[in-house]
Amino acid sequence: MDLRIVLVEPLYQGNVGSVTRAMKNFGFSDLVLVNPCKLEGEARAMSSHARDLLENAKRVSTLDEAIEDCSIIIGTTGIAGSRFDLHLRVPGYSPKEMKERLSGRSGKVAVLFGREDNGFTREELKKCDMIMTIPTSEIYPVMNLSHAVAVVLYEFSSIKSAQAPLADSRDMRILYEHLAELLDDIDYPEHKKEKTNLMLKRIFGRSCLLSREVHTLHGILRKIQRKSGNNCEDDDADYEN
Amino acid sequence: MDLRIVLVEPLYQGNVGSVTRAMKNFGFSDLVLVNPCKLEGEARAMSSHARDLLENAKRVSTLDEAIEDCSIIIGTTGIAGSRFDLHLRVPGYSPKEMKERLSGRSGKVAVLFGREDNGFTREELKKCDMIMTIPTSEIYPVMNLSHAVAVVLYEFSSIKSAQAPLADSRDMRILYEHLAELLDDIDYPEHKKEKTNLMLKRIFGRSCLLSREVHTLHGILRKIQRKSGNNCEDDDADYEN
Repeated sequence: MDLRIVLVEPLYQGNVGSVTRAMKNFGFSDLVLVNPCKLEGEARAMSSHARDLLENAKRVSTLDEAIEDCSIIIGTTGIAGSRFDLHLRVPGYSPKEMKERLSGRSGKVAVLFGREDNGFTREELKKCDMIMTIPTSEIYPVMNLSHAVAVVLYEFSSIKSAQAPLADSRDMRILYEHLAELLDDIDYPEHKKEKTNLMLKRIFGRSCLLSREVHTLHGILRKIQRKSGNNCEDDDADYEN
Repeated sequence: MDLRIVLVEPLYQGNVGSVTRAMKNFGFSDLVLVNPCKLEGEARAMSSHARDLLENAKRVSTLDEAIEDCSIIIGTTGIAGSRFDLHLRVPGYSPKEMKERLSGRSGKVAVLFGREDNGFTREELKKCDMIMTIPTSEIYPVMNLSHAVAVVLYEFSSIKSAQAPLADSRDMRILYEHLAELLDDIDYPEHKKEKTNLMLKRIFGRSCLLSREVHTLHGILRKIQRKSGNNCEDDDADYEN
């Protein structure tokens, strides 16, 4: 997603620094600041290792300049619509819903965040194509600016969690066979075997074992088999990865 | 979800304050601090309207005390497993995956966050049943503590976005009939009508109209009909909400 974060007249430099950190954490770098507060030591401290984003942020004096090359303008607001300005503020899609609405669309998307105290003006809201609202508690709905940015970028980020190498179905089948073999070896009551084998399958099945875990389990099972006096041939190459 | 946030030896009071704010934003209140730093003015400032959570946070001196009444212990880490401690850190479920794994389970869930500088010790990681990792950029994976808490709580929160009253299928059918009527009134070419009606249906269909927007659209259509000289009976009660 070609995403731009636009902060409209941010008041606290620490927040701006924190926003750059969250952006870099989620792999985004296009930041435009509309009439920001002074950005000095605290902003740099909060940006931490994202100081490059802070220094490269574009500064403009009007919202129009910030969004002129964008296809879709999204306003983020924590305040639900009142009767007075309902048409400006609804529907407020959640970040998840917004991500779905944006999927498959091309062009630069600007996500706007308003002032920490007063949010957006009506004129600014009018420039938005869609409104996004993070679902929060009615008791205390107003999020910290950088928290709101972090949540939105978490949802919009396409970074996937590193996939651990899960055991495949062959690994699992061999594990279940080994477990069944163990029940034989320890003279487990014949009439209980089927049920117990199924239970073991359910337990290990829902734990989504990694290949390396299956490997270690085989090692444990072999140790048990040896200790309990059963011949366990040493041709266990099948189980080695 | 019966959720507890556990901060293990947090170093910066501003972060602790920010964490309480994020918790209150997402409707959570059970916070346990293991050997926290001093919590003074900055913590209170960052907690904003969540000072009650800050004051009511339980302080303990060991992780064991923090989790003794919990059924599931989740460690949150931003650091992918190395060869050295792979079994301690993988699989690292994303918050979304973790939420799915927890669905339907009862009992108190403790979500642990480590020190800002050094995360968890190996001993602490060993106490965790599962590991959660927020998918972040390899270039700068280390999130601010309160940002990480905010993202996890956003994902775990059951607060739904306020549903705007969408037009129902009857509303939409009547709107499409009105649009078709308008095409008749303006002598739209007969052979194009079917295609154009379908296009209008597609356009308004994908915009997920609110009831009030449908209402206003009928008003516009009636104005057009009157202006274009067609009789438009005044029994439009159907369209009034």
